[in-house]
Amino acid sequence: MIKTDILIIGAGPTGLFTVFEAGLLKLKCHLIDALPQAGGQLTELYPKKPIYDIPAFPEVLAGDLVDNLMEQIKPFEPGFTLGERAEDIEKLEDDSFIVTTDKGTKHHARVIAIAGGLGSFEPRKPPIPKLTDFEDRGVSYMVKNPESYRDKDVVIAGGGDSALDWSIFLADVASNVTLIHRRNEFRGALESVDRVKELKDMGKIKLITPAEVIDVNGNGHLENVLVRKNSDPKEDFEMQTDFFIPLFGLSPKLGPIANWGLDIEKNAIKVDNSLDYQTNIPGIYAIGDVNTYPGKLKLILCGFHEATLMCQSAYQRIHPDKKYVMKYTTVGGVTGFDGSKKQAPKAVVKSID
Amino acid sequence: MIKTDILIIGAGPTGLFTVFEAGLLKLKCHLIDALPQAGGQLTELYPKKPIYDIPAFPEVLAGDLVDNLMEQIKPFEPGFTLGERAEDIEKLEDDSFIVTTDKGTKHHARVIAIAGGLGSFEPRKPPIPKLTDFEDRGVSYMVKNPESYRDKDVVIAGGGDSALDWSIFLADVASNVTLIHRRNEFRGALESVDRVKELKDMGKIKLITPAEVIDVNGNGHLENVLVRKNSDPKEDFEMQTDFFIPLFGLSPKLGPIANWGLDIEKNAIKVDNSLDYQTNIPGIYAIGDVNTYPGKLKLILCGFHEATLMCQSAYQRIHPDKKYVMKYTTVGGVTGFDGSKKQAPKAVVKSID
Ligand SMILES: Cc1cc2nc3c(=O)[nH]c(=O)nc-3n(C[C@H](O)[C@H](O)[C@H](O)COP(=O)(O)OP(=O)(O)OC[C@H]3O[C@@H](n4cnc5c(N)ncnc54)[C@H](O)[C@@H]3O)c2cc1C
Ligand SMILES: Cc1cc2nc3c(=O)[nH]c(=O)nc-3n(C[C@H](O)[C@H](O)[C@H](O)COP(=O)(O)OP(=O)(O)OC[C@H]3O[C@@H](n4cnc5c(N)ncnc54)[C@H](O)[C@@H]3O)c2cc1C
Repeated sequence: MIKTDILIIGAGPTGLFTVFEAGLLKLKCHLIDALPQAGGQLTELYPKKPIYDIPAFPEVLAGDLVDNLMEQIKPFEPGFTLGERAEDIEKLEDDSFIVTTDKGTKHHARVIAIAGGLGSFEPRKPPIPKLTDFEDRGVSYMVKNPESYRDKDVVIAGGGDSALDWSIFLADVASNVTLIHRRNEFRGALESVDRVKELKDMGKIKLITPAEVIDVNGNGHLENVLVRKNSDPKEDFEMQTDFFIPLFGLSPKLGPIANWGLDIEKNAIKVDNSLDYQTNIPGIYAIGDVNTYPGKLKLILCGFHEATLMCQSAYQRIHPDKKYVMKYTTVGGVTGFDGSKKQAPKAVVKSID
Repeated sequence: MIKTDILIIGAGPTGLFTVFEAGLLKLKCHLIDALPQAGGQLTELYPKKPIYDIPAFPEVLAGDLVDNLMEQIKPFEPGFTLGERAEDIEKLEDDSFIVTTDKGTKHHARVIAIAGGLGSFEPRKPPIPKLTDFEDRGVSYMVKNPESYRDKDVVIAGGGDSALDWSIFLADVASNVTLIHRRNEFRGALESVDRVKELKDMGKIKLITPAEVIDVNGNGHLENVLVRKNSDPKEDFEMQTDFFIPLFGLSPKLGPIANWGLDIEKNAIKVDNSLDYQTNIPGIYAIGDVNTYPGKLKLILCGFHEATLMCQSAYQRIHPDKKYVMKYTTVGGVTGFDGSKKQAPKAVVKSID
């Protein structure tokens, strides 16, 4: 059982910044995310695109914003349960909660902060009947650990940035990378498209277009895929492979959280924005894209503010007997749980003679 | 008469970021500030100190944060009325407003955003009876235009960062700089204290401590000051000077805004935080440190969020007939009023052969 003060569901920018604000209040955080990495929509959907409306960043790449947040929260040593979806919640007699993931990992906390964005990112699966039989046995919909493909044969399907970028990355890791797409045209960053062409010309990526994987086979573990070229059954052929990674995008689904007894409106969780972004269940807060209230804007900077106010309320819940006196970071510095201390240089009082 | 869409009172971080969010909505802004420069508390009180709780900045100097904000809002060409205090407000029949400063400058807008922080920064004046007779005639409490001291004699009084830093700066501009402080000890950044000592040893700053200016004299314009050394009237002496700048700190005063008919609580303006940070007077909003509501935190990041929500409401007030559809900056880019355009590189659709 993982124990923490605030359990955060969703490691997008809102969830990440919560760790910092909680840390200032000496509260520990643990984050769960269905994705294999932190950053939410920014990392999954547009890591290389610039954002222009983060305050005091005239321009920042989404991926860099996440890196900065990770650096900022490092002193507060957040825990992560990645690649798992928060599935069930149970309220204990002492008003604390246990949250269990789809893989059975259990987390205990007095405060739950749902920072689930548009929902848990779930892969769009191609309509191949036997596909699910091979999930985690050769078939996966996202790359969690690139090293697991070392010196293996990998077939990737898809025509967007993920398919392009992982083909490029795995070209150096796997023994063979085949990229299959049902059109000749790819849609992605110009760089990536050009790089795939280069790697193809160098023989490091095998490209099959227009084509689709229409069947998967194996004995326990995946052994081969059936490829249909030019939509023509006469051209069907089998390809041996250790892995098949269909990358047809992830779509967010509020999913299991929708059944936790929370007030839901238009696929978002209603919160009390006049006070602390708490939901109808005391002790469960919802912040960032996942919540709704009159005038709500689904913007990164709004999640930062909501997280900050929420942490004050969480502090009161966790320490009903204490009163927190806010100190500016410039004045009080930042003391990490890892023993680190950042502090502004103090003014000196010194005579000049 | 200066005309604009949103008139912002206070050019601190909240007021500055408002220009950006308004600009995305194609609304023009003009800012009034009592200080001679933008940045509010950050520039006036701690420009060289690090802040640790700005989201995605593990550390940023207050002065750099303001520089970044100025760069971010540049495409939206904000107007500035600096060194003037917003004094009076008048509501016209068409529900627009005219705001007049202490220097008589008039501004017309349909929306007023009060981002006045802890209030208009007003200088602490030393208790010298004739001092006010020479205001703007040799006596000033802040340095608005350093060039006006070129080749002149300047007496600065004070023992903190402002007195130290302006003595250092003006040592290269004025013909003579005298720094007078009632103690031998100065309180400021170590660098500044050391630099003043160096300049004193080089004969570029004259230092008189412990001493106080106790009288000012002149014929129309300031001509000399009376200095008392060691609290001993027997040591009193006159010093010829063109300028006297007492730098005893600025203290913020809500001041005239307190009489505008707004609901005030604990020196702050009550707003509707459940919707749009509007005050009890429709069309007047209050954002950042100057406002109050249940759970309010006087933090920079909170002002950013409040400004953003407020701008949406301002848009509805200014364009009651239009519906604004929000577009992410990453998707829609940023189109400046100056003709500039920032935009994420578009994905290409390209075949690989
Ligand atoms: C193309 C694009 C451009 C954008 N441009 C901008 C912009 O310029 N400016 C701006 O402010 N915003 C922009 N946005 C919106 C911005 O990305 C979101 O506002 C932001 O990501 C919200 O952050 P969050 O932390 O609330 O949620 P998210 O980033 O959505 O993260 C939520 C995380 O929670 C996880 N999760 C949800 N449910 C569960 C569960 N049950 N179990 C485990 N994990 C779960 C998800 O997997 C996800 O990783 C853009 C969005 C897109 C798609
Ligand atoms: C030493 C110190 C350290 C701090 N550290 C942090 C920190 O680490 N993190 C953090 O988030 N915050 C910190 N703060 C607080 C932060 O500075 C404020 O939250 C922030 O400045 C508020 O911004 P604002 O734009 O709302 O108001 P301000 O910065 O106060 O700006 C308001 C401006 O309005 C002007 N004004 C007011 N009334 C009038 C009028 N009638 N006419 C003309 N002009 C007017 C004032 O002159 C002023 O320039 C710190 C503050 C101090 C003093």
